[in-house]
Amino acid sequence: MDDQGLDRIFNPRGVALVGASNDVRKFGNIFFSALLETGANVYPVNLKKKKILDRNAYPSVKDIPYDVDYAIISIPLQGIPEVIEDCGKKGVKGVSIYTAGYGETGTEEGKKREEELAETAKKANVRIIGPNCLGICSPTGKLVFLPGIPMERGDVGFISQSGGHAEEFAYEAGSWGIRPSRIVSYGNGCDVSCEELLDYLVEDPETKVIGIYIEGVEDGRNFLNTLKEATKRKPVVVWKGGVTEGGGKAAASHTGSLAGSSKVWEAAIKQSGAIMVNDRDELADQISAIKYLIRPKGRRVGIVGAGGGASVASTDVCEMSGLEVPVLEEETMRKLRGMIPPMGTSVKNPVDISYFLIFDFPLLKECTEIVAGDEKVDIIVAHVSHFDVMVKSIASIVEVIFETLVETKEIVDGYKKPMAVVLQPGGSTDIEMEKVKLRKRLVEEGMCVFPSIYRAAKSLANLAFFANHENSRYNWR
Amino acid sequence: MDDQGLDRIFNPRGVALVGASNDVRKFGNIFFSALLETGANVYPVNLKKKKILDRNAYPSVKDIPYDVDYAIISIPLQGIPEVIEDCGKKGVKGVSIYTAGYGETGTEEGKKREEELAETAKKANVRIIGPNCLGICSPTGKLVFLPGIPMERGDVGFISQSGGHAEEFAYEAGSWGIRPSRIVSYGNGCDVSCEELLDYLVEDPETKVIGIYIEGVEDGRNFLNTLKEATKRKPVVVWKGGVTEGGGKAAASHTGSLAGSSKVWEAAIKQSGAIMVNDRDELADQISAIKYLIRPKGRRVGIVGAGGGASVASTDVCEMSGLEVPVLEEETMRKLRGMIPPMGTSVKNPVDISYFLIFDFPLLKECTEIVAGDEKVDIIVAHVSHFDVMVKSIASIVEVIFETLVETKEIVDGYKKPMAVVLQPGGSTDIEMEKVKLRKRLVEEGMCVFPSIYRAAKSLANLAFFANHENSRYNWR
Repeated sequence: MDDQGLDRIFNPRGVALVGASNDVRKFGNIFFSALLETGANVYPVNLKKKKILDRNAYPSVKDIPYDVDYAIISIPLQGIPEVIEDCGKKGVKGVSIYTAGYGETGTEEGKKREEELAETAKKANVRIIGPNCLGICSPTGKLVFLPGIPMERGDVGFISQSGGHAEEFAYEAGSWGIRPSRIVSYGNGCDVSCEELLDYLVEDPETKVIGIYIEGVEDGRNFLNTLKEATKRKPVVVWKGGVTEGGGKAAASHTGSLAGSSKVWEAAIKQSGAIMVNDRDELADQISAIKYLIRPKGRRVGIVGAGGGASVASTDVCEMSGLEVPVLEEETMRKLRGMIPPMGTSVKNPVDISYFLIFDFPLLKECTEIVAGDEKVDIIVAHVSHFDVMVKSIASIVEVIFETLVETKEIVDGYKKPMAVVLQPGGSTDIEMEKVKLRKRLVEEGMCVFPSIYRAAKSLANLAFFANHENSRYNWR
Repeated sequence: MDDQGLDRIFNPRGVALVGASNDVRKFGNIFFSALLETGANVYPVNLKKKKILDRNAYPSVKDIPYDVDYAIISIPLQGIPEVIEDCGKKGVKGVSIYTAGYGETGTEEGKKREEELAETAKKANVRIIGPNCLGICSPTGKLVFLPGIPMERGDVGFISQSGGHAEEFAYEAGSWGIRPSRIVSYGNGCDVSCEELLDYLVEDPETKVIGIYIEGVEDGRNFLNTLKEATKRKPVVVWKGGVTEGGGKAAASHTGSLAGSSKVWEAAIKQSGAIMVNDRDELADQISAIKYLIRPKGRRVGIVGAGGGASVASTDVCEMSGLEVPVLEEETMRKLRGMIPPMGTSVKNPVDISYFLIFDFPLLKECTEIVAGDEKVDIIVAHVSHFDVMVKSIASIVEVIFETLVETKEIVDGYKKPMAVVLQPGGSTDIEMEKVKLRKRLVEEGMCVFPSIYRAAKSLANLAFFANHENSRYNWR
């Protein structure tokens, strides 16, 4: 099947939902409700019922009197081969299979069942996503796998061997400033493989950045070669599950994957020009950093706004992550000295404005402008400290903070340097809500907002390393 | 000065605020407003004004016609020695000095000024907290350093060389389920040292758990000996700032400390029986874990509720943190198999209930009960997955989740094993608010709720290690 074929699956003219159900406790109901929300041309298929959620149901895919390019299958195992054959006859390009009970069971029976499934699909000329997966989210195709998932058209593609991680990405990406172009939960991957999906996303004009969650691959060399080609054209972030012995065993139960050791994977992925991450937060942070941050020229960070203790802690975590926190140029320090009083502050880097920030938050902008102009600095971190005391002491301060950060970002953009914001969560419920809302507003303005300097530093260090990686000569911005 | 003396400072009969001001942009105003909120017996001292915020002001501490045990000093450098002498004459036991410009400047002049300050205090028989610090929060003494800080009486003491970290702890500890007994920002520590404060908190009946943020100490051996004695009686968590070269330089600017290398500190702190952490989140997590979790007998974790991908990821991070995720006993797996359908689930550990959890969240409780009874499991992690889809699909589900977790915790308590909850933030604004509120409710019920398995695993691994440390033979519960 050519890419045109996969493209039909991601942008289908019609979708058949095989196993559509009126029982709210069945996935055949959840999938159907979700697709009705998006306005997809979805046709319920059910052997017994004539109506599903008030829509006409069909006994077979073959009976649907409209074009159908994609089918979602959520029925018991034994009926699936016949459905695949029906799909072939109907001209359906591909199906995703929610049903589990194949290779991931670890039994000979399950493995054999999966092999036979792949053969059936080949004969019928129908591609399979799965089995044991949630399938596809694709805003341009009005495809979604669960209800209430935000469907704004985005530019981040996510390929996930895990349905749960695909689900979280679908619901939560928005809060990291990420809107998906395509999300694919591909489960056991008996036919359409991670590599094929990666090739597709590299060609896909909707997709600008690619994330992958993978537990294991059939052919490691092939995966790495595909990855290497992909990173020449688009940034790719890889979260490799099952890198410990126990994690590898869990992966075997989950998707029947042979996971392989951490170090081998890490070295290979890094060499391919992709960024390897180790958990969900790192994945989110890294994609957001790639998407929103200007490509840094080096790894020297200028930190502005942290208090004294936070300055020490920030420097520690930056250096532990492989970044540098250089002492600023004499001229820079002289200018800063003209702006902030000497007592209890520091102009060396981190620039500690201390409590003067409380009474004059725009000082953050003025100081950052000076630091951004310093040739010894490649990356700016604006650290919003004293949030709680500011909110408790000064009316409308959140608005001042928001505007100051937006203006600061514009200034730093002018120097063609990336700026990350650190805004730590926590505090009383009202303060925490204020932080959630402020973060979302900043993210909507295209800013990268991290909940700790620790998480900012990890993403920035990767960004600095890979922006200059020999195999990543594309513009990340 | 005996401990009775320090106790007078933490529970003063009266407080003088030297430098009290009507100017809302001055700390003399902020400190005063904050103390008026708590109902402390606070007396403003101001050379020129007769009234500060409508209260009678006094030209000198000596003129206050009431008992004064503690004074807060926020005036320019040159006036401070005389104020200390006045405090001595008045019988004030101790002062905290907000004013900076001493040893932390790195200048000979600053260092000399600090030495002279300490001498003045000694002669006057007045103890100094600081200079260059925020001073004390102490709910039983109605002492607070900034406005709007929650003042519920608690049992966690925090000694911080950094004012900013003390400030964050004061405002945000509540959201981690921590209520402070005492918080001390001691800045340059020219007189009352970290060691003396630690001794005080060990004796203090209000304090059950102790946290420390420290950048450097005068005498490393003395600090470690004090720490070793302290950990025999109460759990101590140490966040050491300035462990990298750059961080050490920042520490020198901040509090004039010689910071010392990471590895030396880590080994020494670990040997003393204290837990070393590396950032604010780890500090919060660890204190919360010590406070709320039953002391585990070993490091074998049973994880319940994570989806397939999350099971793999959870196992990875647990093993990377030094925990084990053992395969459960045959009998346990057999029982679990009777409760959750086989397709797409796992009963090995992690116990993956998959999407069956959505329709029957109390399954989490039933499965956890079985796992908690397994002799191969020392620690329970209940992972709340599918939160977004549950909230989007099922009315009042948050209430069901809350009640299920509370009941699950009670059951696990019965097995005398600790249970941590993982609830990841993120999602659309309404979902995120729901998560914030749910987390707070769970924390109020005495639960330890982590935002990621990564953070849970780090704290649990430390807990398992130190609960059985040779120098920590106290009951952590």
